[in-house]
Amino acid sequence: MTTTKLYGGNEAGGKKIVCSITSGPDQIVQEIRFSTTTPEDTLRRAIQFFEPFVANRQINSIGIGCFGPLDLNPKSATYGFITATPKPHWSNVDVRGTLQRKLNVTIGFDSDVNVAALGEYTWGASRGYDPSLYLTIGTGIGGGYLINGKSLIGLLNLEMGHIRIPHNRELDPFHGSCPFHDDCFEGLASGPAIEKRLGVTGVIVPESDAFWDIEAEYIASALMNYILTLSPKKIILGGGVMQREFLFPKIRRKVLELLNGYVSSKSVLENIDQYIVPPGLGNQS
Amino acid sequence: MTTTKLYGGNEAGGKKIVCSITSGPDQIVQEIRFSTTTPEDTLRRAIQFFEPFVANRQINSIGIGCFGPLDLNPKSATYGFITATPKPHWSNVDVRGTLQRKLNVTIGFDSDVNVAALGEYTWGASRGYDPSLYLTIGTGIGGGYLINGKSLIGLLNLEMGHIRIPHNRELDPFHGSCPFHDDCFEGLASGPAIEKRLGVTGVIVPESDAFWDIEAEYIASALMNYILTLSPKKIILGGGVMQREFLFPKIRRKVLELLNGYVSSKSVLENIDQYIVPPGLGNQS
Repeated sequence: MTTTKLYGGNEAGGKKIVCSITSGPDQIVQEIRFSTTTPEDTLRRAIQFFEPFVANRQINSIGIGCFGPLDLNPKSATYGFITATPKPHWSNVDVRGTLQRKLNVTIGFDSDVNVAALGEYTWGASRGYDPSLYLTIGTGIGGGYLINGKSLIGLLNLEMGHIRIPHNRELDPFHGSCPFHDDCFEGLASGPAIEKRLGVTGVIVPESDAFWDIEAEYIASALMNYILTLSPKKIILGGGVMQREFLFPKIRRKVLELLNGYVSSKSVLENIDQYIVPPGLGNQS
Repeated sequence: MTTTKLYGGNEAGGKKIVCSITSGPDQIVQEIRFSTTTPEDTLRRAIQFFEPFVANRQINSIGIGCFGPLDLNPKSATYGFITATPKPHWSNVDVRGTLQRKLNVTIGFDSDVNVAALGEYTWGASRGYDPSLYLTIGTGIGGGYLINGKSLIGLLNLEMGHIRIPHNRELDPFHGSCPFHDDCFEGLASGPAIEKRLGVTGVIVPESDAFWDIEAEYIASALMNYILTLSPKKIILGGGVMQREFLFPKIRRKVLELLNGYVSSKSVLENIDQYIVPPGLGNQS
């Protein structure tokens, strides 16, 4: 019998589910991945995976990072539910409660991006930096903001990917892809927005394409707003779009240009290479 | 000798200073107001006002709400200083330390807008609402955000008045008045921006003027960004521009229109009249 402390992890995405037993950031003891289908089928498979570890008392808690929108208010009657989502079958599903009742262990429940932010704060690039911001730019755009080591929960789950930013329609006539807000940040700069605008996935758009300067400006505009509003000590940019690493220097340069000296912090003005960074855990966060 | 607990308050604005001794939000025991001149002269007058109350042990703490930008990091060597400001003579002035050394009392030091936010949270419109946001729209635009009853301090003092928002130049060709960012929120919607654009102070622009719809949209855009990023449970709008009370319904309507149903909170969707409100303490906060 092992004496290493083990953790149960459940990363519930809109496309796939990853259930894992780990003893640290790089030590995966066991892991399964499967497609997200109906809630009944999907949650049943997750429960089956964890059951033996619970029965053998190898784990007594499971952390769930779930796609949203979520009810994260512990005082709410629908705490731990996925709320209204465009994804068929998944509106008003009690993800947390279902696992809790079947497995009878402590369940940590948060949004996928908050869990990624916490992973980076515990083991990765934002370790020791409080408050910190983790932003994922991929299929959607979402932010996890940690203060005093905890994710900020206010009136509602943060949806900072949907903020309004300047959109120069002469330079970029694209209408925007957000079904709610057209040309909000996500509607202009997410993976699907890039694909809809250019007709091809961003993965194959060459680094020399002038579009990337426009993309970098959108991301820099949003970062400027987050810096002035949330004042994070570290900003991590993850997600599929940020796999194009040449974007980092473009974004950093543009953030400095937009702020125009209006912050007196050396972390920003002189060490921006260490201020806006990729995830320390790669795809593991 | 009075047994009522008294508080020392020092509101240090760029134009005038108010020093007061109070026993509560509406109970001003004594108060003086004078113009902000040089740091030496101004701080000396404040110290002279408080000295007798300290000597008689009537107060043992003073709260200072100061104009910025400020160093609010207690671990910093220049904590309590005004940092780089365009206001002549006031860059790198040790406001907190000067009063601390001369009066030898506990000094609470924060930005003017954070102190206003705290006043509203203690006695006013945001009492019981955590997190909460206080926004002042006047000579400048500034925000105070309280979480767990304290103002958010991260890397730097929040400067959320300078966020980037959409600017439709066909509808509003005004270039913007911010010396750092041209058409940031403050550059588009502050009192001086209104006056520079219209040639007259906003105080005398009639309610029927079409400009107020543009103004309301700028404010609503910024509020949408703050809601999605900070998730406050109450938003208070103060400052000179918000004295034009007809702006409130315009702003609330526009916030709902921009969010377009994208938040699942009844506080926002159904009770916006109670969500975005004027200060409970009027000019006292």
